[in-house]
Amino acid sequence: MQYKIHHSGKGHDYTEDEIAIVVEAMRQADPLTQGKYRNEFEAKFSQYHGVKYSFALNNATCALVLAAQLCQFEEGDELIAPTLTFTSSVYPFIKKGAKIVWADIDFTTRVLTAETIEPHITPRTKAILVVNLYGYLTDMPSIMALAKKHNILVVEDNAQAMGTDLNGQKAGTFADLGVFSFHSHKNISTLGEGGMLVVKDERMAKLVPMLRHNGHTTFDFEREHYWLPAMGNLDMPELNGKMMLPSNFCIGEIECALGAKLLDRLDQMNAEKRKRAIYFIDSLKKFEEIEFHRVDSTRHNYHLLVAYLKDDKRNRFFEKMAYEHKIQVIAPYYPLYRYEMYKKLGYGTANCPATDRFWDNMVSFPFHHWLSDSDFEYMLESTKKSLETLR
Amino acid sequence: MQYKIHHSGKGHDYTEDEIAIVVEAMRQADPLTQGKYRNEFEAKFSQYHGVKYSFALNNATCALVLAAQLCQFEEGDELIAPTLTFTSSVYPFIKKGAKIVWADIDFTTRVLTAETIEPHITPRTKAILVVNLYGYLTDMPSIMALAKKHNILVVEDNAQAMGTDLNGQKAGTFADLGVFSFHSHKNISTLGEGGMLVVKDERMAKLVPMLRHNGHTTFDFEREHYWLPAMGNLDMPELNGKMMLPSNFCIGEIECALGAKLLDRLDQMNAEKRKRAIYFIDSLKKFEEIEFHRVDSTRHNYHLLVAYLKDDKRNRFFEKMAYEHKIQVIAPYYPLYRYEMYKKLGYGTANCPATDRFWDNMVSFPFHHWLSDSDFEYMLESTKKSLETLR
Repeated sequence: MQYKIHHSGKGHDYTEDEIAIVVEAMRQADPLTQGKYRNEFEAKFSQYHGVKYSFALNNATCALVLAAQLCQFEEGDELIAPTLTFTSSVYPFIKKGAKIVWADIDFTTRVLTAETIEPHITPRTKAILVVNLYGYLTDMPSIMALAKKHNILVVEDNAQAMGTDLNGQKAGTFADLGVFSFHSHKNISTLGEGGMLVVKDERMAKLVPMLRHNGHTTFDFEREHYWLPAMGNLDMPELNGKMMLPSNFCIGEIECALGAKLLDRLDQMNAEKRKRAIYFIDSLKKFEEIEFHRVDSTRHNYHLLVAYLKDDKRNRFFEKMAYEHKIQVIAPYYPLYRYEMYKKLGYGTANCPATDRFWDNMVSFPFHHWLSDSDFEYMLESTKKSLETLR
Repeated sequence: MQYKIHHSGKGHDYTEDEIAIVVEAMRQADPLTQGKYRNEFEAKFSQYHGVKYSFALNNATCALVLAAQLCQFEEGDELIAPTLTFTSSVYPFIKKGAKIVWADIDFTTRVLTAETIEPHITPRTKAILVVNLYGYLTDMPSIMALAKKHNILVVEDNAQAMGTDLNGQKAGTFADLGVFSFHSHKNISTLGEGGMLVVKDERMAKLVPMLRHNGHTTFDFEREHYWLPAMGNLDMPELNGKMMLPSNFCIGEIECALGAKLLDRLDQMNAEKRKRAIYFIDSLKKFEEIEFHRVDSTRHNYHLLVAYLKDDKRNRFFEKMAYEHKIQVIAPYYPLYRYEMYKKLGYGTANCPATDRFWDNMVSFPFHHWLSDSDFEYMLESTKKSLETLR
């Protein structure tokens, strides 16, 4: 179908300055991977977030694989996770041996809370996965307090809420391990693929470069000649006396040069999206049948603009918007437990009534940063018309 | 140290036309990953190589992880592999459960042959890993015949020999699974990171898109509305009745647009490097103490220009070249069994005398495609002078 407004796979456009940075890096970078641009990107990223250890990676799924590996799950160890999220939040933990325990969202904020997590804690709980879904920063302080009480690791999947903060602390920096995405859809994108892993523990931080890059490391002695015994060393990353096999999750220099540049525009893009979201929400105030999560602060960047439709109106609303007004509204994210993949893995049931109620009645509007004003106004008017005709 | 000629981490420069393709894709691609540019790159790659199934990936290590996964190693299953190669050739197989059996190289060609492989075949041999090292295409037909006789899978690591051929058949297309690299050092580079997996078996080929991209797949029924039951489906890839957990090994659209463009220049760059290599080799003919593998045909692309130095002259040659003439000669690849990593994994011994003899006496010259004529001539003269003073 030809849409008037499609749900773009590209979160933002590139400015001429950003394109120029890519061209410059293509001319100058040597090597084209694992060089100074990566170091500069990581340093700038750490500074922006007020953290010590940031590691640029090829994508956020691989960042989650590393995070899961660093949790060191053993047979029977459990991960508490939401079922309302993108699959990459969860399946890396299954690959790394975790037993998944589904927790429900808080209906209003659509994310986990200490209250929805706590009933699932057992002596086998090794870690909690929190997802700052749709761009909203979860109440991390209360979750971190709960985790500390029980000596549980926390992984913060911040693929969507980059740049948001709570009392000045940036999203993705609360947990033991924070994951960021620079995928095509996301707040900023390093040419379509990219991610970052933020690590608190110094022992973990020392291992990430080896885990990221094939086990490459330095020799623990001074060599007389650079080619003896070899050009470089390979060793096994070890944590708590256990070996961990490495991977190759490297991101190229050109992407890193671009990523560093994009950090300059992140706050502005987030502010522009939030302003639009609040305007859209407030313009629909009289329609009580559509409910948004309204957060007019830097705690939400409205990566996605989602709403809940009361009275079983969701499917008819979709039909009006998609087929009559030609606006490609969508419904992310199908609760993971309902997919064949998770059923086959033994995770096909979940007692998550708030998730079910929300997802079965939700809609996500096209909301890429480069949406034109006229398209945005057309979408708002079409939403009003659709809701009116459904009354 | 400041070198006059450093061993560049960048295999080739980008032309203005190639930079323009990147700029155009940055303006036009939507989405920025997993879209039409990837499809075009894969189609053009398949056509160039005369194969049916090519899958663009984030790097060659991850392509080897998928290849290893598709081999479906079970407890005790063996992989025959060379110890003279980059670590990424081998450790993905260890991650996927293979027991490694080291095979020696043929001293003259520096790669495995049917003769060096055959003694290692046991009833537990599941697969053979062949590496087209330094840019030379292994005698694949004889290895494939041997493998067929024993019903063994073959993986062809063609990270360095892209574009070479044997009787018209391209490197990387002989084996069951062929792996290509677009890393910064390589024959062509998609902005520093990138790879391709070529698959022969149709059943395997059907699984790779799911394995590459988080298990994403279509529904096996016609949906009335695109959002019900969900926007997309997730399922478990299965081969021979066994489930295989997926990964996210996607490469971005901009890299794919560039990769497709670079294919146009591959043959020319290979020919230019080979011409230089042959000139270098022939210019040193009178120095019997340095031996090259001279192949003046499209079977070798001289990705690297390596030589063997007789009479224990290697280290003194290194010193002359590096410290006197300021040319950063190097020594790839330290036999894997000697690394701490492989020792800790139980692979710290190998009966590979040809590998040992070659590596302990070898040198690799700076040989990036963009090496200037004057630097190249300076390197040739410096080599002559070094050899003369060592007499």
